[in-house]
Amino acid sequence: MKYSFQITGWGIYLPPKIETSEALSIKINKSEKWIISRTGVKERRISDIDVDEMGAIAAKEAIGNKEPPDLIINASGVPKQVIPDTSVFIQKQLSFSGIPSFSVHATCLSFIVALNIAGSLIQSGNNKKILIVSSDRGTRGRNYNEPESAALLGDAAAAIYIESSNDNEGLLHYSMATFPEGAELTEVKGGGTNLHPQDSATRPEHNLFTMKGPQIFKMAFQKVYDRIERDLLANKITHKDIDLLIPHQASIRAIRAYSKYGGFTEKQVMNILPTTGNCVAASLPLALVMAYRQKKINKKNLIYLVGTGAGLSIASALIRL
Amino acid sequence: MKYSFQITGWGIYLPPKIETSEALSIKINKSEKWIISRTGVKERRISDIDVDEMGAIAAKEAIGNKEPPDLIINASGVPKQVIPDTSVFIQKQLSFSGIPSFSVHATCLSFIVALNIAGSLIQSGNNKKILIVSSDRGTRGRNYNEPESAALLGDAAAAIYIESSNDNEGLLHYSMATFPEGAELTEVKGGGTNLHPQDSATRPEHNLFTMKGPQIFKMAFQKVYDRIERDLLANKITHKDIDLLIPHQASIRAIRAYSKYGGFTEKQVMNILPTTGNCVAASLPLALVMAYRQKKINKKNLIYLVGTGAGLSIASALIRL
Repeated sequence: MKYSFQITGWGIYLPPKIETSEALSIKINKSEKWIISRTGVKERRISDIDVDEMGAIAAKEAIGNKEPPDLIINASGVPKQVIPDTSVFIQKQLSFSGIPSFSVHATCLSFIVALNIAGSLIQSGNNKKILIVSSDRGTRGRNYNEPESAALLGDAAAAIYIESSNDNEGLLHYSMATFPEGAELTEVKGGGTNLHPQDSATRPEHNLFTMKGPQIFKMAFQKVYDRIERDLLANKITHKDIDLLIPHQASIRAIRAYSKYGGFTEKQVMNILPTTGNCVAASLPLALVMAYRQKKINKKNLIYLVGTGAGLSIASALIRL
Repeated sequence: MKYSFQITGWGIYLPPKIETSEALSIKINKSEKWIISRTGVKERRISDIDVDEMGAIAAKEAIGNKEPPDLIINASGVPKQVIPDTSVFIQKQLSFSGIPSFSVHATCLSFIVALNIAGSLIQSGNNKKILIVSSDRGTRGRNYNEPESAALLGDAAAAIYIESSNDNEGLLHYSMATFPEGAELTEVKGGGTNLHPQDSATRPEHNLFTMKGPQIFKMAFQKVYDRIERDLLANKITHKDIDLLIPHQASIRAIRAYSKYGGFTEKQVMNILPTTGNCVAASLPLALVMAYRQKKINKKNLIYLVGTGAGLSIASALIRL
């Protein structure tokens, strides 16, 4: 075991407001059929509350009647605001005070990266109980002039509470690689020092999400394939040993590739995209918690989290529940 | 030793362009004397290049002729853009590819938080050589209608390269606490999902830095004092055992408080504020690297990093060089 820990709390927040692809079709000037065949998303949630409130609802579920965590990590794609970081506002919504909090940002892979960090901190004995929260409101940054990415995005939050463990459970394996030659494939160019909101050169679309789906797929395909092969080999396991592969819900094409080309069966691959869309960093933990709630995964199961994110980055984590 | 490691590379970037307080006085409608007596900042640097390029210059110095790191952590206060995170662009500027990269965000305390994470990852044996880069361009977000904070901010970058160690060196002690009741004391409200650049409710000042200095000082004073006492007690050391206290360069009042009320001598407290201003997350590593270059710290010395950041958060790290 690389880092021993147990997941003792699970929480999600799915906003009650549903936007069907039929309703969206007018906004992006594409038919419902085009949206569903192209993106696989039949409906997505739209949040009327902000990321901190969303994250806190998921966090409350994850904490349950356990003690407050000794660390809160926000692992989301887009912040509530530039300063302070979102973890502060999540803690505020939870009515806690004095708990160390910070954010980890690796766009859609923030949850996997945070899980590795949290695992390391717990393994070292310096933290005992960590709350990881991913909350994203991607629909706030939709560009209606880019119909494919606008149709993909949805809002959600998810959280887990992890504690130390003496059993054979936790993170077996973790990997990440970042390829900056793909930096321009997924962007929100504004909001920082580059194209500051105040600059005359900053145009409205700079503050919106843009994604070159086909180019990402092309660049990521071989890299993800190789990553899976290496991860399996390093752990001396085969595809069959994975009880559930939980991919980032990037697009239906990306999710299907794991079974179509990646050597897994369709049943082995968690797919929540049709009803939630791509929820940026919240997608991975959302799919993980939903799989747990739907009893698709159980104690002792071997779970494989894997995905690509803006960067372009690839990350994976092999978890023994 | 909590986490053993050695700092084997040190780098900074101070932009060549100097803005004196005399030059700034016209912009903020305050006299040079007012600026210097109120903030302690005589001059600050203004960067014409963006945070990724600044960070990469500091990183190149820190890497020197050593091997590329196996992890790049961006530990800055304000990003280049919303997506991807700044670590990707720093890696791009370094002409690397394939190195895992992500950002840690805890505003002005990002460096201390990243150092604890990096220490934990190295201690676990899963990383061997980590590059931590802090790069901030606070002058991009100055609000000239808030003269005190506008006069405080300056631009800079700093980086360190850390490797595993079998000697008695590394992180002896780390602490952090976040108090969200102080969330509104330091803010850049825009740039995220809260006051999105596209919203009609978002006003220009929402995208600028705002800081309620006196209220922060009032809220932080006792908390920092108690933190120091607890840190010393926990490590069974006294003020005299600290070779150099490196505070976040928040304001001259905050820096002076460590010697005026905190039990340290003025000589024990690193103060670079008069010539660099408050460089957000870059201040702490900048002061650390400058202290090293100026031979104020040497091998085997005991260094105490401490500061407050937006949140309001307090963090500290006791390092044996």
